[in-house]
Amino acid sequence: MKVAELISVGTELLLGDILNSNAQYLSKQLASLGIACYYQSTVGDNPDRLQKVIELAASRANLLIFTGGLGPTPDDLTTETIAQTFSTPLVEDAAVVADIAAKFATRGRQMTDNNLKQALRPEGADILPNPVGTAPGMIWSPKPDVVLMTFPGVPTEMKRMWQDTAVPYLRSRQWATEVIASRTLRFWGVSESALAEKVGDLFDSTNPTVAPYANWGEVKLRIAAKAGTEAEALATIAPLEEHLRSIGGIDCYGADDDTLASVVGQLLARQGETISVAESCTGGGLGAMLTAVSGSSGYFLGGVIAYDNWIKQALLGVDAEVLASHGAVSAAVAQQMAEGVRDRTGSTWGLSITGVAGPEGGTAEKPVGLVYVGVAGPQVALGVPYRFGDRGREWVRQVSACSALDQLRRRLIARLGACS
Amino acid sequence: MKVAELISVGTELLLGDILNSNAQYLSKQLASLGIACYYQSTVGDNPDRLQKVIELAASRANLLIFTGGLGPTPDDLTTETIAQTFSTPLVEDAAVVADIAAKFATRGRQMTDNNLKQALRPEGADILPNPVGTAPGMIWSPKPDVVLMTFPGVPTEMKRMWQDTAVPYLRSRQWATEVIASRTLRFWGVSESALAEKVGDLFDSTNPTVAPYANWGEVKLRIAAKAGTEAEALATIAPLEEHLRSIGGIDCYGADDDTLASVVGQLLARQGETISVAESCTGGGLGAMLTAVSGSSGYFLGGVIAYDNWIKQALLGVDAEVLASHGAVSAAVAQQMAEGVRDRTGSTWGLSITGVAGPEGGTAEKPVGLVYVGVAGPQVALGVPYRFGDRGREWVRQVSACSALDQLRRRLIARLGACS
Repeated sequence: MKVAELISVGTELLLGDILNSNAQYLSKQLASLGIACYYQSTVGDNPDRLQKVIELAASRANLLIFTGGLGPTPDDLTTETIAQTFSTPLVEDAAVVADIAAKFATRGRQMTDNNLKQALRPEGADILPNPVGTAPGMIWSPKPDVVLMTFPGVPTEMKRMWQDTAVPYLRSRQWATEVIASRTLRFWGVSESALAEKVGDLFDSTNPTVAPYANWGEVKLRIAAKAGTEAEALATIAPLEEHLRSIGGIDCYGADDDTLASVVGQLLARQGETISVAESCTGGGLGAMLTAVSGSSGYFLGGVIAYDNWIKQALLGVDAEVLASHGAVSAAVAQQMAEGVRDRTGSTWGLSITGVAGPEGGTAEKPVGLVYVGVAGPQVALGVPYRFGDRGREWVRQVSACSALDQLRRRLIARLGACS
Repeated sequence: MKVAELISVGTELLLGDILNSNAQYLSKQLASLGIACYYQSTVGDNPDRLQKVIELAASRANLLIFTGGLGPTPDDLTTETIAQTFSTPLVEDAAVVADIAAKFATRGRQMTDNNLKQALRPEGADILPNPVGTAPGMIWSPKPDVVLMTFPGVPTEMKRMWQDTAVPYLRSRQWATEVIASRTLRFWGVSESALAEKVGDLFDSTNPTVAPYANWGEVKLRIAAKAGTEAEALATIAPLEEHLRSIGGIDCYGADDDTLASVVGQLLARQGETISVAESCTGGGLGAMLTAVSGSSGYFLGGVIAYDNWIKQALLGVDAEVLASHGAVSAAVAQQMAEGVRDRTGSTWGLSITGVAGPEGGTAEKPVGLVYVGVAGPQVALGVPYRFGDRGREWVRQVSACSALDQLRRRLIARLGACS
């Protein structure tokens, strides 16, 4: 098995000005290709220190992957330092000069001598083309069984070059022998620990692996399998996915790129039904989630942001007496908001949220994090309480909107079951 | 000057399962304390490789900062490997045993032998207390002019331990001699390159430094100054901030934690004015931005999400003929939406958005990214066109909401000027 080593170059990394997301991306990529990685280093734009890092890496790894230090300014030194480390002269690549000149011409700007610096490569090195920016990288074997590749630090450029050129190169040379495929199952309405108990010893499985993740109220299970081909890997995943879905039941709302909003949208579209929203503490966040889905105009009509109590009365017809006796944060008001928006828009379903997002406004009886979701639809009109706790305004608002979508999702599924 | 080196331990980092945000945090901290950092390494939970990394770091740095590998499981090896590297026996720390036992008792759980592992430290090392979790770290000088500190990989625990114990330790020993303070000025309505041209050679300034950042339509200038005390650093920043604000003019909307929504809110609150919104393509995102600000109930009344054209007519009173002749994405409809929501809510200002968010729905005449912002208020009612281009649905929606807020911000400021 070949062993890779990552070398991230840039003083801005050492100063913490930049988060090194490139290292994570490349680590994941290497793991998915079946290439080991034992060490990763970060070093500044300093030729002496960079050279020491290169020498050490070339003594213990087969594939050295550099990011950063390919720019046009004098402090970008990666190419020069690599050439110097292996005592190889730099040559100007005519094709790269022409390419950079063309890119500048397209943008109507003047190429400078600094830019010509980006056309230099050690003698014998191949260019690793950059279809997105001006700085190409290189692929070079300076000594037997050692290959090095350089990439710009800009993540979009690095990723494109990695996928377009580096991965095919590694596969063609049999350095990359494996494929990792994965599926992420998404759950709402169950805690990570409760789900973990149900899933039990599947977390000990080695191929496929199952790993839990949780954030902002959502729990995810990532199933990953390693195999010689993607089809084989996916075939290993399928029975485990089915098993986990049956364990998760209705709490499992989807997989991979699904969102609660997209799943609710699919359920509505399948029945030819529509939805409108009435929002207080989320202030439009529920509508924004629903309309983040491309094509949502097929089932989402609109709604009312009823932040002020007077708007709840004027635009949604909430009863002033109910507001006064139950308070704006109550099951009765949530229900009337949902009914009101459904009536006024003519939608199949009205979905509402009213709650205390905090940090101000909580009382002993109605603390921060108390939220009511209202649902109005065929044969149903009610308000459901949730207690999310005082975990920050942003958190309460986000989890409220997701919980409203999940509330409707469960009802839509139950109704589909009853109808079928 | 003392030189630090970061050593991140964990196979999960090498596999890319985790983004190494600890390295960025600690890099920033070291820079702000005036401690240099020339190298950073990541290595897996492997004692031989970890030992090599430790030996190298101890030969070239004074302060070795470890994160990760302090957990209770057998693959957590940082403490053991450090002791082994410096040929020092491990001893059990009675105070830590008592502390871990107490934490388990509080949670009503049974302590295991694995947990006792976390009470081990090399003879002569001091405990670096962990007030948040069970894994303490250590501070130890295994040889002259070398100090090493260990932290758990969990960011919240690491940060708390760093601030509570490590920083005071470094200051008391005069290793940390400097303070970096910074201010970030925020701009909307000007491109990074246009602002850079105006700011000119200030980017070459070394103390304070000025650095530009841009994302999602916003441009930021970060001013950072190094000095012996925070007050001195801030005093160095103040005149430069004033200068940059005068260069930026009205494009500079705020600093640090300000948002366009919070700034608009302050302008409204100052005049005792209120706002309501009417949203089409943003689907509630503008309302969500405004209500993300705590205390927004003082000036934000609510609004209408008019996604479907029929809702624009039914809930906002947009003229069916205007819709038919101009189309939903037009200055006339934007204006009528703003007027409609202002009338229906009784707010001082009505702010509306209608546009083509994409990816579907664009035409040659009305391409993806064409957006109209409507403003209705005292002596004003109009629709303003924006062309954001086809840069993704999420981008168009986000930039649309920000541009609407900025449009109102400029009018509120102009009006304040006219009134004063």
